[in-house]
Amino acid sequence: MSGFVSFVSSGPGDPELLTVRAVDRIRGADAILYDDLSAGPILDLARPEADLVGVGKRAGRPSPRQDHVSRLLVDYAATGARVVRLKSGDAGIFGRLEEEIVALRAAGIAHEIIPGVSAASAAAAAADLSLTRRKTARRLQFVTGHDLNGALPERLNMAALADPEAMTAVYMGRRTFAEFAERLVAAGLPGDTPALLAEAISTPGQALRLDTLAGLAARLRDAPAGDAPALILYGPLGEPGPEVIR
Amino acid sequence: MSGFVSFVSSGPGDPELLTVRAVDRIRGADAILYDDLSAGPILDLARPEADLVGVGKRAGRPSPRQDHVSRLLVDYAATGARVVRLKSGDAGIFGRLEEEIVALRAAGIAHEIIPGVSAASAAAAAADLSLTRRKTARRLQFVTGHDLNGALPERLNMAALADPEAMTAVYMGRRTFAEFAERLVAAGLPGDTPALLAEAISTPGQALRLDTLAGLAARLRDAPAGDAPALILYGPLGEPGPEVIR
Repeated sequence: MSGFVSFVSSGPGDPELLTVRAVDRIRGADAILYDDLSAGPILDLARPEADLVGVGKRAGRPSPRQDHVSRLLVDYAATGARVVRLKSGDAGIFGRLEEEIVALRAAGIAHEIIPGVSAASAAAAAADLSLTRRKTARRLQFVTGHDLNGALPERLNMAALADPEAMTAVYMGRRTFAEFAERLVAAGLPGDTPALLAEAISTPGQALRLDTLAGLAARLRDAPAGDAPALILYGPLGEPGPEVIR
Repeated sequence: MSGFVSFVSSGPGDPELLTVRAVDRIRGADAILYDDLSAGPILDLARPEADLVGVGKRAGRPSPRQDHVSRLLVDYAATGARVVRLKSGDAGIFGRLEEEIVALRAAGIAHEIIPGVSAASAAAAAADLSLTRRKTARRLQFVTGHDLNGALPERLNMAALADPEAMTAVYMGRRTFAEFAERLVAAGLPGDTPALLAEAISTPGQALRLDTLAGLAARLRDAPAGDAPALILYGPLGEPGPEVIR
């Protein structure tokens, strides 16, 4: 008897931004292992008898060790259960998906990955912006603002990240953005480069604020500890829509 | 009387990879303007009486001029219709979304953007890979392999693109990949860097092939003119799953 694991991308939070296949897998699951960021009303889709297991990994908070999460996933599947491993945004983008795939392969457990809407796509859409722009933002790049210890990652390609012709999305970058922006400016990116802070995208608490690199850095230096998940976009953003505070 | 335009991301092609909101908008549409790449069985969700208008933009084929597409979009909405503008993958990634938003804003037509599953996310998921990897692929970047004339874009940040610690997704890059790979190698990226060609992702014709940068360049130099939409991933890919031909 061997179960099956579906890695399900939850999208930014609004259940309407789940894919049709994600909804199907969540509805059919015997057990759902979820992170804090991927939970909310999405879990309401689960069957009443499904096991809901929080394995919350949230920046700056204590969370179960990754190998424990992988172990739990294998153990659940080994009972023959249909297991959903719910991951925020797109599971393949800064979701530590690989560690869990490796564990399932080692245990010989069949699995699938259901791709989803990444936070960057959702943030741009909410702001009425395109992530790429034909003449001005030809390259799009994603980085994470914190490593396992919550600090700015050690190895960053600053020349690539300070390219004025790229659009950059910083995942989980709120706490480290002041330091990161300083390094971007030192690498040559103007401090008045547009920057957008997108919080709690697609949820009732959504807030979108347009600023500059330097302005947003100053704001987050003073108040870095907000609770809502945040994505930062910077680069040649273009003109955002009316939902965006200036 | 003024209509409403929903920019709907179609995802890679499989209707199950549409978001719930995308399905809702397609089902409710009076008119759907679609590109070749975003069509297929997704259009079967439309009401029988909906207008289906192909404005096919496909690499290497003649297609309506962008300003004509924008004009058509405005004209349809001005009749009071609920218009869906269907775009392949995520609408905000290499979808020329901005031009159409600008046209709608100028005409005072209300609109929304529904984000979706980008080809890179879908390709990685199908190959059982994560797009980011904690220690080896900390930066993820997207570029397009062709400009409006079908050639490799003139301004490319080769240092950023040849970074061995980044994962790169090349959209619409089949025809220009031989030349692109040559420039990557000239910029210092080893020719044996893993490269994955993902064709017709999530459709019955899906094909995933693992190669090296140099190997894939040689293959595509000899046979560049395949018809299926193709996405190329290169960088520290990791170990793909059994669906991938080696």
